[in-house]
Amino acid sequence: MPTPTASSKPLRVGIAGLGRLGLRHAENLAFRLRHCQLVAACSPVEAERSTAREHLGVGLVFDSLEAMLQGADLDAVVLVTPTSLHADQAIAVLEAGKHVFIEKPLALNVEDCERVEAVKARHPGLTAMVGFVRRFDPSYANAFDSIQANAVGKPFLVRSQTADQYSPDGFFVRFAGTSGGIFMDCSVHDIDLARWMLGSPKAVRAFATGTIACHPDLAQHKDVDNGLAIVEFEGGARAVLYASRTFAHGHETQTEVIGTQGQLQVGAGAARDRVVYSDTHGVRHLAVKDFFERFEAAFQLEMQAFVDSCLGLRTCPLTLQDATAATRIGLAITRSLHSGQPEAV
Amino acid sequence: MPTPTASSKPLRVGIAGLGRLGLRHAENLAFRLRHCQLVAACSPVEAERSTAREHLGVGLVFDSLEAMLQGADLDAVVLVTPTSLHADQAIAVLEAGKHVFIEKPLALNVEDCERVEAVKARHPGLTAMVGFVRRFDPSYANAFDSIQANAVGKPFLVRSQTADQYSPDGFFVRFAGTSGGIFMDCSVHDIDLARWMLGSPKAVRAFATGTIACHPDLAQHKDVDNGLAIVEFEGGARAVLYASRTFAHGHETQTEVIGTQGQLQVGAGAARDRVVYSDTHGVRHLAVKDFFERFEAAFQLEMQAFVDSCLGLRTCPLTLQDATAATRIGLAITRSLHSGQPEAV
Amino acid sequence: MPTPTASSKPLRVGIAGLGRLGLRHAENLAFRLRHCQLVAACSPVEAERSTAREHLGVGLVFDSLEAMLQGADLDAVVLVTPTSLHADQAIAVLEAGKHVFIEKPLALNVEDCERVEAVKARHPGLTAMVGFVRRFDPSYANAFDSIQANAVGKPFLVRSQTADQYSPDGFFVRFAGTSGGIFMDCSVHDIDLARWMLGSPKAVRAFATGTIACHPDLAQHKDVDNGLAIVEFEGGARAVLYASRTFAHGHETQTEVIGTQGQLQVGAGAARDRVVYSDTHGVRHLAVKDFFERFEAAFQLEMQAFVDSCLGLRTCPLTLQDATAATRIGLAITRSLHSGQPEAV
Amino acid sequence: MPTPTASSKPLRVGIAGLGRLGLRHAENLAFRLRHCQLVAACSPVEAERSTAREHLGVGLVFDSLEAMLQGADLDAVVLVTPTSLHADQAIAVLEAGKHVFIEKPLALNVEDCERVEAVKARHPGLTAMVGFVRRFDPSYANAFDSIQANAVGKPFLVRSQTADQYSPDGFFVRFAGTSGGIFMDCSVHDIDLARWMLGSPKAVRAFATGTIACHPDLAQHKDVDNGLAIVEFEGGARAVLYASRTFAHGHETQTEVIGTQGQLQVGAGAARDRVVYSDTHGVRHLAVKDFFERFEAAFQLEMQAFVDSCLGLRTCPLTLQDATAATRIGLAITRSLHSGQPEAV
Repeated sequence: MPTPTASSKPLRVGIAGLGRLGLRHAENLAFRLRHCQLVAACSPVEAERSTAREHLGVGLVFDSLEAMLQGADLDAVVLVTPTSLHADQAIAVLEAGKHVFIEKPLALNVEDCERVEAVKARHPGLTAMVGFVRRFDPSYANAFDSIQANAVGKPFLVRSQTADQYSPDGFFVRFAGTSGGIFMDCSVHDIDLARWMLGSPKAVRAFATGTIACHPDLAQHKDVDNGLAIVEFEGGARAVLYASRTFAHGHETQTEVIGTQGQLQVGAGAARDRVVYSDTHGVRHLAVKDFFERFEAAFQLEMQAFVDSCLGLRTCPLTLQDATAATRIGLAITRSLHSGQPEAV
Repeated sequence: MPTPTASSKPLRVGIAGLGRLGLRHAENLAFRLRHCQLVAACSPVEAERSTAREHLGVGLVFDSLEAMLQGADLDAVVLVTPTSLHADQAIAVLEAGKHVFIEKPLALNVEDCERVEAVKARHPGLTAMVGFVRRFDPSYANAFDSIQANAVGKPFLVRSQTADQYSPDGFFVRFAGTSGGIFMDCSVHDIDLARWMLGSPKAVRAFATGTIACHPDLAQHKDVDNGLAIVEFEGGARAVLYASRTFAHGHETQTEVIGTQGQLQVGAGAARDRVVYSDTHGVRHLAVKDFFERFEAAFQLEMQAFVDSCLGLRTCPLTLQDATAATRIGLAITRSLHSGQPEAV
Repeated sequence: MPTPTASSKPLRVGIAGLGRLGLRHAENLAFRLRHCQLVAACSPVEAERSTAREHLGVGLVFDSLEAMLQGADLDAVVLVTPTSLHADQAIAVLEAGKHVFIEKPLALNVEDCERVEAVKARHPGLTAMVGFVRRFDPSYANAFDSIQANAVGKPFLVRSQTADQYSPDGFFVRFAGTSGGIFMDCSVHDIDLARWMLGSPKAVRAFATGTIACHPDLAQHKDVDNGLAIVEFEGGARAVLYASRTFAHGHETQTEVIGTQGQLQVGAGAARDRVVYSDTHGVRHLAVKDFFERFEAAFQLEMQAFVDSCLGLRTCPLTLQDATAATRIGLAITRSLHSGQPEAV
Repeated sequence: MPTPTASSKPLRVGIAGLGRLGLRHAENLAFRLRHCQLVAACSPVEAERSTAREHLGVGLVFDSLEAMLQGADLDAVVLVTPTSLHADQAIAVLEAGKHVFIEKPLALNVEDCERVEAVKARHPGLTAMVGFVRRFDPSYANAFDSIQANAVGKPFLVRSQTADQYSPDGFFVRFAGTSGGIFMDCSVHDIDLARWMLGSPKAVRAFATGTIACHPDLAQHKDVDNGLAIVEFEGGARAVLYASRTFAHGHETQTEVIGTQGQLQVGAGAARDRVVYSDTHGVRHLAVKDFFERFEAAFQLEMQAFVDSCLGLRTCPLTLQDATAATRIGLAITRSLHSGQPEAV
């Protein structure tokens, strides 16, 4: 890790949104990261503002992003707000001359992505990074480095899944109307991973199908709880994606990269830890419960990468173009789910 | 295993074709199975006839199926001949009043399958079984039994792959013109497994794509060395298939069955045995080299099942209709690979 | 496998003892092995004689070994009788000029072992083999071959365990008085494996301890249900042994061989098959239930090796000296368990 | 995690010793932990003092513990100094009225341990904790919690190993004269784990043996590079320990706890991450290189536990008595290695 001199001024960060994921980002910024200070927070929700003051010890607390941008002296803003607000808020932050971190997805349409890209292009000195957290997971990072070091030869196929543990409360069903559907909500991570591992080839076409296994209420949203997609890239590479909301054993994020000389697989089995039990149920390990548990270290490394990028200590590992490309593919997949036909990306 | 009385007359079997797979079937019939005798063999190849006499100790050796049917007193015939001959030969055996085992695939077109079905329908007392060997693998059999016992709830998704180790001699390329392509040659097993595990739902539609990673000569046959397909079934079940000719580590046949209450996976890792090595290459096991090694026990159990079915000791576990259904799906997948569009099954 | 010409005369085998393990050997001899015929059987138990006639189709059935030796024209005898009879019976078979297979252990004292060795020495043309079945397990055989091929450098430590699934009926407790104790009954296999893997060094000293976890009745036999031992060999090699009667998940036979360049492990996890389940119990596989299931293939390969040795088709892979050496070490371990001190081998 | 109010005064910590492990503790204290400030450091080595100033940003830097205790206003001191200094330094810190963390082992003789215990007894308000880091590893912690929740029934056997990757430079050989030998240096962790998992039974007797596989120079120190020990506890529990300096694949810390209803295993395979490679070397994962990599999270959690204990936010999870008991057992094992006889603890 690059070490700034002891006199480096820490990055002054404000956070917008302190829901479950926002709180995790905030705790990392406040307690676990180097080179930064969490100095401000904003939320329209009083309980979240109270958490900012009391649990996080943040001095400057506001009820809107606008107020925070005006009332606090910030270097950077972390947006963990509803997706529909991402584009406009990111633009507002950039226009205010501050670095911006945007929780994924950047937007649910390409136009919004491109609007943010355009503003960012006018502020080349600012960092704008979207939260594709898996790139910062140590296992995914090691896998990527191995591929760069030719461990699998030329990679030509990615198989990747995001599967959440079945939740009887069907939390996500209530958000089905605004989440963009299972592929925009879950597979967008796999899309980003596939592009990253394959060397960012241009996607050409996508085909999708799916089924409703456990959540019949999804039908009204034209969504599914188990979705399958194939993406075709220029040059012959392919990706097969699977997203599920109905796994019994836990959250299993799994990605295979198959190349001409070998292959690698990340995350199979989703082990919670290094403990194996042998008892009347067999020989077994427990699985991680959710992406929070699975990507705990990655969330911390991700935000450190953002902070360090803002300070010029390292290059930003993700561009807005990466986010736009993933959105574009996710939308083609979603169109295919609805049309039943392959759709051009 | 049902035990016939010591006085049961063993099944008198003749085999047609003593290539690599034929020889394995013949050795099982001659040396390892109960209730049968390998009494005759036929082959147009002198070396194979010589093997029959000297290695297998078969007394009656012929140069054609016709000659064998006339010259030997047989109860059953095992066909391990080129696919293009399967339908006519199976019909000839049935018309001769003998049980028939046909190595997979039954045929490369549905018409041929249905011709055999029609003849079989006129001989209800005869057994006609196609060699979907994986159903007899102990792991697949245990998986099927578990599903029947509700271990995964209602199964709705099968992911299945057949992957062969890369062979620099590209043996299969020379047969690409007559094999029916990667899906008819390899995935037909996965199709049969998917149907079996899902309770034989009716297939509706298929989509396929693929890529050529290592064998450019395949292009002239409109074939690929890595193929991907999705099959949609009535009632919402889905199958995702993957076939490869280019794996570096060995032959990896792998099948997942995902249900509403859990899932199971057969064959991941393709371990050759129970040995794990820890050395400078890491912590590792070796993989099986090919389907011969992987399904050694299954080939034996499969043929025992055929023999026992012929003798009325058990019900034939596979019907010709299963073979026809798999062929139908495999053909739709292959059409989709060529058209680039989903194809009706 | 060497292939005798079709005219080779098969080995005529008689079996003594048709208990659970005897029946397995008999079924292999009758139905699954090449180059042999099971022509005779003897047992003092009428039910076993009846099984021989009806299930196995054996023509010549006797109520004693003596009667069988007199009444049947045999080339070889397989002894699966109580351990206390092994030595005298083996000698009787050898003196009758027949090959002999003796189920392990050869004897519970060194004197008996040496008596058999002495008789065998007078019949150099006969095969006498003791049933250390694990040497014929494909995984152990592959492990041995790897070590011979220098896969772990110079091996210097073996850790090996034999662990049976807990049985509430405590079957083995009733035999504790005659079994020789846990080390003679279970660890003798691990002792043989350790010697084999380490290149048969001379054992010098042994130390043992143990505990009674679940079967208090063992105390009266001075036996334990979980035993631990360390064996010291000349030249610095060591073995650590563990035997248990109380495993919850199944039968787990496990052996590690540690060398100067790496290590290998056989049997960890004791997977029943290639199926992995992911459900509310975690990600898991089932374990084999008992040594019968674990070593099914090995029992077959072992008896084939005996048959082939008798016929001169291969060299006998196990000598009586191997059995004597294992007995000697097992006895030293057992003495140490009772004395609490290291005991010279 | 308990959350002190935002106004809590952080713990003011000084560190003594900034070698490899000291630096890790210092970085955690300076950058990654809550509720503390690293305000002072001392070392007799100029390079380490320079690191303290420039890399860690510590304002108060001294060349001796005495100078630091006088010159800095501290609440707690972390000792990462040579083992021979631990006891006297710990006493000095406690007598100065400050909490103390002592890197393991507390001492190489029981008298020193008891001297520290006696001083600590006179300062009941101070925390004194020894660095048995594995107790803070999430996997070991989960294992312990499972055992407390009766996952394995009554535990009666622990098998535990500490194995370091072979290092051609034989770093540890140079320290063999002062390290106390392989059991005091490595197995002391396993001893502590065994006591912890088994419910802290009283150890009665120990037996040890070992071998020199790769480092002949150890003979002059009466040490071995592969050591084996058995510990007998009152009530029947047993522990089997293995320590090695010569593993080819990495650092493998592994612990099994076997109980009457099941068993669990921590750390087998020592996977570096969640990546599995399939290539011409087989199906494999890489192993962690050393205890630094293996216990990265544990070192952080350990120090947080110490800080929180000092602040009264939680109870100190480890007592000096635990350290004394482990030392006592380690010394008996070491005596047994030299005497060749079981030794009373």
